[in-house]
Amino acid sequence: MTEDSIVAKLRRYSRFLGDDCAVIRPRPNEDLLFTTDFSIENVHFTRDQKASGIGHRALARSLSDIAAMGGKPRYCLVSLALAPWTNSRWIDGFYRGLLKLARSTATELAGGDLSHSSQLTCDVMVCGSIARGQALPRSGAKPGDTIYVSGPLGGWTHKPVIVPRLQLGRKLVGKANACMDISDGLALDLYRLCRESGVAADIQSIPLLPGATVQQALRDGEDYELLYTAAASRRVPGIAIGSIRQGRPGALTYAGKRLEPKGYDHTQHCT
Amino acid sequence: MTEDSIVAKLRRYSRFLGDDCAVIRPRPNEDLLFTTDFSIENVHFTRDQKASGIGHRALARSLSDIAAMGGKPRYCLVSLALAPWTNSRWIDGFYRGLLKLARSTATELAGGDLSHSSQLTCDVMVCGSIARGQALPRSGAKPGDTIYVSGPLGGWTHKPVIVPRLQLGRKLVGKANACMDISDGLALDLYRLCRESGVAADIQSIPLLPGATVQQALRDGEDYELLYTAAASRRVPGIAIGSIRQGRPGALTYAGKRLEPKGYDHTQHCT
Repeated sequence: MTEDSIVAKLRRYSRFLGDDCAVIRPRPNEDLLFTTDFSIENVHFTRDQKASGIGHRALARSLSDIAAMGGKPRYCLVSLALAPWTNSRWIDGFYRGLLKLARSTATELAGGDLSHSSQLTCDVMVCGSIARGQALPRSGAKPGDTIYVSGPLGGWTHKPVIVPRLQLGRKLVGKANACMDISDGLALDLYRLCRESGVAADIQSIPLLPGATVQQALRDGEDYELLYTAAASRRVPGIAIGSIRQGRPGALTYAGKRLEPKGYDHTQHCT
Repeated sequence: MTEDSIVAKLRRYSRFLGDDCAVIRPRPNEDLLFTTDFSIENVHFTRDQKASGIGHRALARSLSDIAAMGGKPRYCLVSLALAPWTNSRWIDGFYRGLLKLARSTATELAGGDLSHSSQLTCDVMVCGSIARGQALPRSGAKPGDTIYVSGPLGGWTHKPVIVPRLQLGRKLVGKANACMDISDGLALDLYRLCRESGVAADIQSIPLLPGATVQQALRDGEDYELLYTAAASRRVPGIAIGSIRQGRPGALTYAGKRLEPKGYDHTQHCT
């Protein structure tokens, strides 16, 4: 199992892998969206999970960012550092899971890098597209907006499979004032949206996954539902959870009480 | 030192970091180039090296791929998984080295991801641009072409600083028939160029860095010089090292003797 033999296999699935760079021809009147997300052993997954599920999740995390901007995914680059325990069967399973999700979302494998590390490490870059000037920002929330989430929350222990909300994201273009995905818990992510928009927010109620607690929904992260705001007069799909108001940027309340903007911090080592 | 505090610092250097994705507006009549490269502790660098040098090298590896296509760098995404030993001074140094090279090559920091790992791990994606249809492929080498390298070789032990050959790459557009950068040793990389082009090659002589051996130039990798071919009648800059001929795709000779296409394989763990 050499670098060239892995690339030779992947070339069956990609028209791009022969050169130093993938060459992409942009379409007229489109903006491009770029995002990248790590998937690291013992941080985002453990090696006892199915290889195909790890591959699915590695791509799904980045697709969720494309969904949050209202875009369509176009291309992905997959960087993979193999661990000493990975064998060719694991590698096949990983790419099978990743490429299945890529096909179903019309995301083309356009390149990547291969290396090795003590912890298996994957970094997936996705390039998406959206009609010029139509991308959904975090910074557009306005006082009086209703706040929505795309589904029930509960954090990573209750959300085994990530389903990127690509269709919903596209429906929100021209309707939502602000949008992002919930990766680090509702409290921290809503704080970020409010700070970018220069507004405050009150949460009235939080839809929960079966068995999940409010604290898990607020703090645990990895829900990958969309969090967005729209004028109260607009009809938009989703579950209303509260409203935007004037106030100190990023100030939050839940059920009338002050809410601290704490959630999952990706730079902190587990202790 | 939290995720948000690192991002807050980086926003001084980037107009992109507030949203889930960076939004890029392509220019008309340009193709875009995508490439990504890992820089991993104990694989590509060791922690006793200067943080600024590690940052420089992490970006330089990807810029070298843009150079190999004849392109101009435009944007980069920097994914960084911090190790337990990294502190805020190290992080500042890393970004200082990376951003200095970014500024000097007109590469804008457009996003990235932050996480943690036992080995410090960085993955840098660069998006470049080139006039439509002008990208230099690996696959265009023709029998009779002269083979060139952009400078003396010797592998990573003799090449402490990577200088991406961006200006040279742009000069080769419309002149070179095939081009790539030498990351895994001259033998393996020339084999790849010849296999993509369906040709064979004879190397007559190899320019060496002071103290380097021919074996190091052929096998060690991490030179990041350009390797390219052009019709013998064309005047192109560079050092001629041999010529392309018809033959089994990828067949190589050096000084009249058969040369095995072996070099550095990034998927193999050191033993």
